[in-house]
Amino acid sequence: MTNKKRPLILITNDDGFRAKGIRTLTAYLKDVADIIVFAPDQPQSGMSSAITSINPLRYFLYKEEENVKTYVCNGTPVDCVKLAMYVLPKKPDMIFSGINHGSNAAVSVLYSGTMGAAIEGCIFGIPSVGMSLCDFGAEADFSQSGMIATEIAKKVWEEKLPKGVCLNVNVPKGEIKGLKIATQTQGKWTNEYYASKDAGQRDVFWLRGYFDNWEEQNKESDEWVLTNGYAAVVPVKIDMTHYETIELLKHWEQEITTD
Amino acid sequence: MTNKKRPLILITNDDGFRAKGIRTLTAYLKDVADIIVFAPDQPQSGMSSAITSINPLRYFLYKEEENVKTYVCNGTPVDCVKLAMYVLPKKPDMIFSGINHGSNAAVSVLYSGTMGAAIEGCIFGIPSVGMSLCDFGAEADFSQSGMIATEIAKKVWEEKLPKGVCLNVNVPKGEIKGLKIATQTQGKWTNEYYASKDAGQRDVFWLRGYFDNWEEQNKESDEWVLTNGYAAVVPVKIDMTHYETIELLKHWEQEITTD
Repeated sequence: MTNKKRPLILITNDDGFRAKGIRTLTAYLKDVADIIVFAPDQPQSGMSSAITSINPLRYFLYKEEENVKTYVCNGTPVDCVKLAMYVLPKKPDMIFSGINHGSNAAVSVLYSGTMGAAIEGCIFGIPSVGMSLCDFGAEADFSQSGMIATEIAKKVWEEKLPKGVCLNVNVPKGEIKGLKIATQTQGKWTNEYYASKDAGQRDVFWLRGYFDNWEEQNKESDEWVLTNGYAAVVPVKIDMTHYETIELLKHWEQEITTD
Repeated sequence: MTNKKRPLILITNDDGFRAKGIRTLTAYLKDVADIIVFAPDQPQSGMSSAITSINPLRYFLYKEEENVKTYVCNGTPVDCVKLAMYVLPKKPDMIFSGINHGSNAAVSVLYSGTMGAAIEGCIFGIPSVGMSLCDFGAEADFSQSGMIATEIAKKVWEEKLPKGVCLNVNVPKGEIKGLKIATQTQGKWTNEYYASKDAGQRDVFWLRGYFDNWEEQNKESDEWVLTNGYAAVVPVKIDMTHYETIELLKHWEQEITTD
């Protein structure tokens, strides 16, 4: 991070402030930046861009160390970003979310609380990155992801990111060959529930599922990149408009009447 | 809906199965389709594409009427779509979500549980539409939105929708001049919290906010269209990749090492 002031990075996640992933991310990034952690008080996996509107939010300063202030909040990952932006005296230069304990590649970008926070940072106009490690194991080693986060932080700090674009970074388990810029793999989760019974013999359904990859041969896709031992960096946009379809539907303007 | 079988429409929402919006939507769509309602048992506003993974899901048949079967589920809007697809014997021909009690235009598409369900339907390859009425009032009149939903259902049934694209339909309050195909307005919510105290004089923060429109003059944007008295139909894509940025970041592949 040459020729520039030391940046301020806001760190959040969706696994909660106690998670190994956010502690590793903080340990790495504090060498190159001042850090404010503002993270959920409990796990918020799969919370997407959910926001809390019916109930009030609270936060408190949990710990203050050299270069690192840690706040804990009772909200979702997006709530954490929004409330941090509201209460903190200084706007961060970058936002990092993660390191998530498990993959957020492919369509999981839509369900991910980790990415919800990164997308929210992007809405605020702040260069934002979601980091995930493709290892659900209890003994997952986040150190390589931490190193990659540091390298990405340096790049983003030097080059910024285009307006309305944040990054979804997934790191494979095991040895890593390098890093590839990739696309969101097309596909979906299938066979999504495990049906069982509760103590009263009532039906209950537990989310699980297997990812059905619709483009296994696409070497640009994040799933291919990860399977082949590279970290995958997908640029993610916050404008969800599918511009190509606008022309296709234009004739509805004449044909659908509202009288 | 000419020359074709009567479609089966799955209806869900994020305001819960008791809400006026979903009851109005059902009342209108049952004239042109067989209906299965599979909706949250309580309000799930702002739940985005959140999924429930730690806790089990449950559902039950709440009511069976002519052309309408209503199931209630303890999950989020996306959970409702996923579980309906898992437990129902027949795949629906279309999915409608709503009618949401309040706008989901502009960046709200990202936070909206209504749109979370529509996006999920789209992931399943089913033509899907989120419907919202831009009226937060307790006496909001959903009937025009119901009529527009019916017209859109006919169009979608005849023409289908492109793969990976669903619709975000917002209907303005009051008299409606017609319908426009539009883009997601660029902008963000500002001044997002109302700070107050709880009974113990501890700080609490309530979400509110005002939408800061960054392109007020863009006549293609959904906010412009709504302000000018038209229903806005935004085609929404599930692929969030920003392809234009891939080339821009390609040099990182050489410059970021993972040794």
